[in-house]
Amino acid sequence: MNITILRIGHRQERDARVTTHIGLTARALGADSMHLAGSDKQVKESIEKVTKCWGGNFAVHNNIDWKKAIIQWKKHGGKIIHLTMYGISIQEALSQIHTDDKLMIVVGAEKVPSELYQIADLNVAVGNQPHSEIAALAIFLDRLNIKQGIDSFTHEYPGGKRKIIPQAHGKKVIKDEIAQD
Amino acid sequence: MNITILRIGHRQERDARVTTHIGLTARALGADSMHLAGSDKQVKESIEKVTKCWGGNFAVHNNIDWKKAIIQWKKHGGKIIHLTMYGISIQEALSQIHTDDKLMIVVGAEKVPSELYQIADLNVAVGNQPHSEIAALAIFLDRLNIKQGIDSFTHEYPGGKRKIIPQAHGKKVIKDEIAQD
Repeated sequence: MNITILRIGHRQERDARVTTHIGLTARALGADSMHLAGSDKQVKESIEKVTKCWGGNFAVHNNIDWKKAIIQWKKHGGKIIHLTMYGISIQEALSQIHTDDKLMIVVGAEKVPSELYQIADLNVAVGNQPHSEIAALAIFLDRLNIKQGIDSFTHEYPGGKRKIIPQAHGKKVIKDEIAQD
Repeated sequence: MNITILRIGHRQERDARVTTHIGLTARALGADSMHLAGSDKQVKESIEKVTKCWGGNFAVHNNIDWKKAIIQWKKHGGKIIHLTMYGISIQEALSQIHTDDKLMIVVGAEKVPSELYQIADLNVAVGNQPHSEIAALAIFLDRLNIKQGIDSFTHEYPGGKRKIIPQAHGKKVIKDEIAQD
């Protein structure tokens, strides 16, 4: 499944950390890329630094026009999933998503353009209580993986210079010194 | 199940939004309260404002000494779950948690005291890739609910002044004008 995140409404000062968390969460749960409406070089660099160190090919596209990106995605047969507390339940939405779908998951900051609710194929509520767009994305991707029989956390990250060896108490990290620059 | 979140390493300016997201995520997924190591009145107020409007009894305890809180929790038979990318897998951890457990879930900011890895009953990795403490908490609570046969998003929030009616396209909110002050 091809999955990209479209982050809209990003404001550089206010949203830098939240948007970085969104990108890293998407990467850690197996998504392919993030499109960032607005521009923030630092967010892009932070996420790319993690990818360089921990591996994989997660891409960040900066300075995106959200509406054009959505129209292009739909033109190429992709589906638009908008995460919003006002939408249909995640269970109902997942039953309408198929393994060969190409998904653009739209994650807004506080207020999103009302047009988005119409243009989206599915407006999906990860619960109808206010919480966090990071939490909503995490649960959506985890349940999407589970639905497809994929373990969210066995995804491979080729080229990583670091790898964690899980420990009951403590930290153990293997560092690939040869690959390190 | 009695669940509280212990947020440690919070720095007022830098972490206000992330810590607020942690509290709201905990509330939306059925946890009972958050203990905040360090003090941040604004975070406490933001979360309590949501509870006042959307219902339920989620409590925020400010200005907590993290080590004392952990020792107290253990003394009363509670378990300490520390979310960290270095820990054992979430599947393995969930198999060691029982329905009648009292859980204190510790969520750190960037670096946590090494002592915490020893004092925790379970150090739990929601994946071994760096991502987001909000995402980790969301997935942990969602899977914990699922394991117990609970739908994370049918939790009741008594006393709420607003309620969303899920929509395929658009927004619908019922406001209880009588209860509103």
